[in-house]
Amino acid sequence: MNKKMILYILGKMLGTEGLLLLIPAIVSLLYKEKTFIYFLIVAAVLMAFYLCFGRKKPENKRIYGKEGFVIVGLAWVLWSLFGALPFFLSDCIPNYIDAVFETVSGFTTTGSTILQNIEALPKGINFWRCFTHWIGGMGVLVFVMMITSLDTDNSMSLMRAEVPGPETDKLVPKVRHTAKLLYQMYFVLTIAEVIFLMFGGMNLYDAIVHSFSTAGTGGFSNRNASVAFYDSAYIDGVITVFMILFGINFNLYFLLLLKDWKSVLKNEELRVYLGVIAAAIVTITINILNMYETIAHAFRYASFQVAAIITTTGFCTADFEYWPELSKTILLMLMVIGACGGSTGGGIKVSRFMILCKSIRQEVHKMLHPNAVTMVRMNGKKVGADTMRSINIYFSAYIFILIVSVLIVSLDNFDFATSFSGVLTTINNVGPGISQVGPTDNFHAFSALSKIVFSFDMLFGRLEIFPYLLILSPDLWRKRF
Amino acid sequence: MNKKMILYILGKMLGTEGLLLLIPAIVSLLYKEKTFIYFLIVAAVLMAFYLCFGRKKPENKRIYGKEGFVIVGLAWVLWSLFGALPFFLSDCIPNYIDAVFETVSGFTTTGSTILQNIEALPKGINFWRCFTHWIGGMGVLVFVMMITSLDTDNSMSLMRAEVPGPETDKLVPKVRHTAKLLYQMYFVLTIAEVIFLMFGGMNLYDAIVHSFSTAGTGGFSNRNASVAFYDSAYIDGVITVFMILFGINFNLYFLLLLKDWKSVLKNEELRVYLGVIAAAIVTITINILNMYETIAHAFRYASFQVAAIITTTGFCTADFEYWPELSKTILLMLMVIGACGGSTGGGIKVSRFMILCKSIRQEVHKMLHPNAVTMVRMNGKKVGADTMRSINIYFSAYIFILIVSVLIVSLDNFDFATSFSGVLTTINNVGPGISQVGPTDNFHAFSALSKIVFSFDMLFGRLEIFPYLLILSPDLWRKRF
Repeated sequence: MNKKMILYILGKMLGTEGLLLLIPAIVSLLYKEKTFIYFLIVAAVLMAFYLCFGRKKPENKRIYGKEGFVIVGLAWVLWSLFGALPFFLSDCIPNYIDAVFETVSGFTTTGSTILQNIEALPKGINFWRCFTHWIGGMGVLVFVMMITSLDTDNSMSLMRAEVPGPETDKLVPKVRHTAKLLYQMYFVLTIAEVIFLMFGGMNLYDAIVHSFSTAGTGGFSNRNASVAFYDSAYIDGVITVFMILFGINFNLYFLLLLKDWKSVLKNEELRVYLGVIAAAIVTITINILNMYETIAHAFRYASFQVAAIITTTGFCTADFEYWPELSKTILLMLMVIGACGGSTGGGIKVSRFMILCKSIRQEVHKMLHPNAVTMVRMNGKKVGADTMRSINIYFSAYIFILIVSVLIVSLDNFDFATSFSGVLTTINNVGPGISQVGPTDNFHAFSALSKIVFSFDMLFGRLEIFPYLLILSPDLWRKRF
Repeated sequence: MNKKMILYILGKMLGTEGLLLLIPAIVSLLYKEKTFIYFLIVAAVLMAFYLCFGRKKPENKRIYGKEGFVIVGLAWVLWSLFGALPFFLSDCIPNYIDAVFETVSGFTTTGSTILQNIEALPKGINFWRCFTHWIGGMGVLVFVMMITSLDTDNSMSLMRAEVPGPETDKLVPKVRHTAKLLYQMYFVLTIAEVIFLMFGGMNLYDAIVHSFSTAGTGGFSNRNASVAFYDSAYIDGVITVFMILFGINFNLYFLLLLKDWKSVLKNEELRVYLGVIAAAIVTITINILNMYETIAHAFRYASFQVAAIITTTGFCTADFEYWPELSKTILLMLMVIGACGGSTGGGIKVSRFMILCKSIRQEVHKMLHPNAVTMVRMNGKKVGADTMRSINIYFSAYIFILIVSVLIVSLDNFDFATSFSGVLTTINNVGPGISQVGPTDNFHAFSALSKIVFSFDMLFGRLEIFPYLLILSPDLWRKRF
């Protein structure tokens, strides 16, 4: 294990967070809020870390998969612990564990909150809260790779540990250029949403904040009533479309830039993703029809909520807590499926589910034709045995963490739907659950222990479990490498 | 596909059910109940089927794994459809779908019921109801193999399709002898329980009926209050011990007969099974301590309920619906884990979970040492790649069926805990769930559609999914073999 290299990269990463904190500091200054000082204090501390560890390159720059996982796993924890300080120091969130929960929820693009009155927050603090979604969506490490030269011989192992989905491709040969390209497309789409929202009458600040949340598929809003505050079919529509767009694999946007329409249209994951969305919208619209005045209303709320849940954004325009059980169960199911691999969305990912379903079909085929040579294919390409194995292990570990988390959280003695959907919504980085963590409630009532469990679940979900399995493995710390 | 052989074996199987129906007919006669006539009518119909299909051996006796799965899958459906007729004809269960639900629940040893007043049933009908547990526990096909010579060249493929767990061993070279040995041990243990229960003051009929239910890990009782009716610490204790015994792999009893103590004590699945039981009992005892007068009371109810749920028997002595959420969640978790492979218990099975956990650990090891050759071992033996793959597929298919079932059942608009635990308890062949399918409620309130879904879930759970995946695969019916 190359510990020096780990320290060096973590030093650079903390410095980057320091730089990023200057942006909410400027926003605070623009709104003449005193909270800017807390951003500067934390930024100064982070810069000090950078100066200590992030400047001198170690001689041995070689890192492997395991270092990649350890760096990513630790970086996300450190970013969250430091990112929580402005909330805590400014007394906006007086309890540090609550502040960490809120920050983890931000960076992991979950969007679950413990805040009771969001509109009371200073503008700068709220900007930082939603900005964490934007950074976390595409990945904090990918961001660092874009702005600094990490000078490692194997930065792909870092990228692979952070970008969601079963397989990660380099768009262009150089990893740094791939990171830049991803962030450029991300930036352009975000700006486009800001413009569309302003056409609907939103002010610049609200438009930016909501675009950050949509882009990262997070779900934080600066309004207590979330997007329902605007009560505008146009704004609902714009956000619905952009949520769906940000749930698509970014590699497909790159193919669009190359004008490779054919590959995009033939992409199996995209087709299933859009198919599931359409089926869920139709079913829920019919199911809730008698609760709304017109079909158009039912369709508007159903499509917004389906897009918000499957992309794991978690915005709310309707209190789906009062919808029939079928609709609620469909939403819980969409939480688990999640968005496409390589997008900013969470969940298990559409492609993982497709490979699981295909491998069930293949097993049945094998039972019928024991001697036939069969293989699972995605987009015409064979899915390798390693990918298959890692998906199966991921799935098992996911269920395992789900069960243990529900057990611990149930100590708080909330009803089963609350504990279960609370864990489900955090591990899938969605935001709202049902029952007492439903769209109009939030996580403030849980004990500190449960909040810590939820925070870990959000991190497990965002980084897809393996980095923390590795960090928590005694094997890693027992032996010398 | 050897269709003639399938018809021949199914003919034999229906004939066997006809013979078995004579036993409750005799019980009815002993109690001078008129219902005996219905048993005889159904037995006569089944005998007619036997005479048509089950007498003339086909020339080609060769069957493979796929025929094994199809025979087992169809046999369980047919046994349930015919086994439901005495309930229906005698008007004890006036609705045929309800009667099928009750019979499937019996044969699959689930123990969920739609009956509101069990004590009103005739003795013969109730005997049949609990007898289905006893036959279903060890397997209807294994029973047929014991009493008739099936004359196939590959009866192991039948046995493998029916005996639960990831791997099935022949105890002795001849399959028919293996089936006989299994049933002999099963019979002796059942008789032992009857004697122990009668020592506690139970009458012969009650003792037999409850021993059938314990042996099959079913859970039907002839008392509305289940085992709580007797309110005896001794009877609770006897049933607790026998439930745990019937949840152990029967191969281990065979090893005991051979005086191979060492292999039994070293058996990893047995250790984990007993360890999980002990841990769950201690945790729940502490958790419910303030609800009962003494530690002894809390321990008695906790240990009975833990044994009843992990072995998927489903007897109740306490209304655990009022226990704290942690205890309820532990019970839900135990439902999923289930008993040992090769026992009469349901659930995913302890050994499957162990192999899943071991493969997670192996994956982490692989990330740390990419070049190391690692393998998953159980009891010192390497777990083959085929077994690993089939466990992973089983697990995926299990989750898939769980989700689809909850979706359909949620159409009935019961709360999430009811729909979810209802599906969980039926697919794991347990019996009671929580909320409105809790220990004092039952399944009568669900729609016919939901009852059909639950019936399929029970069959999926008992036969471990693959037979029905195969039967429902269009591939099987489209092509000629």
